[in-house]
Amino acid sequence: MTFEVAPIASVHSPRKDLSDDFWGAVQAEIILDPAFDESAFFGLSDFSHVEVLFLMHQVNPAKVETGARHPRERMDWPLVGIFAQRGKARPNRIGLTRATIVKVDGRVLTVRGLDAIDGTPVLDVKPWMDEFAPIGAMRQPAWATELMRDYFRD
Amino acid sequence: MTFEVAPIASVHSPRKDLSDDFWGAVQAEIILDPAFDESAFFGLSDFSHVEVLFLMHQVNPAKVETGARHPRERMDWPLVGIFAQRGKARPNRIGLTRATIVKVDGRVLTVRGLDAIDGTPVLDVKPWMDEFAPIGAMRQPAWATELMRDYFRD
Repeated sequence: MTFEVAPIASVHSPRKDLSDDFWGAVQAEIILDPAFDESAFFGLSDFSHVEVLFLMHQVNPAKVETGARHPRERMDWPLVGIFAQRGKARPNRIGLTRATIVKVDGRVLTVRGLDAIDGTPVLDVKPWMDEFAPIGAMRQPAWATELMRDYFRD
Repeated sequence: MTFEVAPIASVHSPRKDLSDDFWGAVQAEIILDPAFDESAFFGLSDFSHVEVLFLMHQVNPAKVETGARHPRERMDWPLVGIFAQRGKARPNRIGLTRATIVKVDGRVLTVRGLDAIDGTPVLDVKPWMDEFAPIGAMRQPAWATELMRDYFRD
C-alpha cells in the first residue's frame, strides 16, 4: 500500500548543498505552487513559527537505511535505528523542521533556520502552536546533543 | 510531479473515531511494518519523546481545503489559510504530533498523547531533540489557544 503526495510549495534558499551544520541564520523562501492562491497563507503572520515538512529529494532512494547505522557514520557514536535518529537517508525521505517566520507576502513565506536546500519540494506547512510542544520532562542521549551542537548555529 | 510514500508502521489505538479533543492520556502502539526489523528502533528508548508523521487516511481527498476556512467551522474564529491552521482536511493529509515514549519493545513503540486513530498509517518516526524546538519568542493568535484548550487534556 502506497500513497501519492504532491508538493504544495518549493524552497528557494541560498544553500545549494547538503552540508550538515550552521543553518541558524539561513533565510529561505517557501513559494506556494501555482495550484494555490495567497488565501492558503491567510493569517499565518499571526504566528511566530511554522513547522515545515519537506521531501529530501536528493537522497537516493537506493541508499535509504531501513535498520540501524551510526549517525553521520561516526563510529564513536552508538549504532542506532533509523527511527531513533534524524538522518536524511530514511524511509520516505521526509524532513521536518521548525522555522521562524520572517514575513508572509502573498504566496511567499520567508523563514529563518530552515535546513532544506534550494529546490526542495515542500509537502506541508503547519503553524506552531505551543500546545503541540513535548509535554513533560525531556531526555536525549549525549550523542544527539553533540551532533546538534553546530546544527542551528549562525 | 508527485512522490510515493509507503507506511513504515501503523497505529493501534483505543481511539477509533475522529473526535477533536482529549488526546492527552491516550496510549497507543506504533507497530513497525513487517518490512522492518527491531533494529530500526534501536536506541529510541534513550529519548523521552518522538515526532510522529502520519497519513490521515480517513479524510476524503475530495474534501481537502486548498484555500482558507474557519477552523472547526467556527464562524466566530477568523477565516485562515489551510497552512495557517492544523485542520485535518489539508493537502497531502499529513498529521504531525509530538508524543511521549512509554516504552519500546522490539518492533512496538508505545506512546502517550498521539492524536491518530486506530489503523492510521505512519510515515515516519523521529526522535525529539531539544535543539529542534522553536528558537526565540513564540506568538500565536487567540483562536489557536482557544481551539487547543482541551486538545491534549486527559
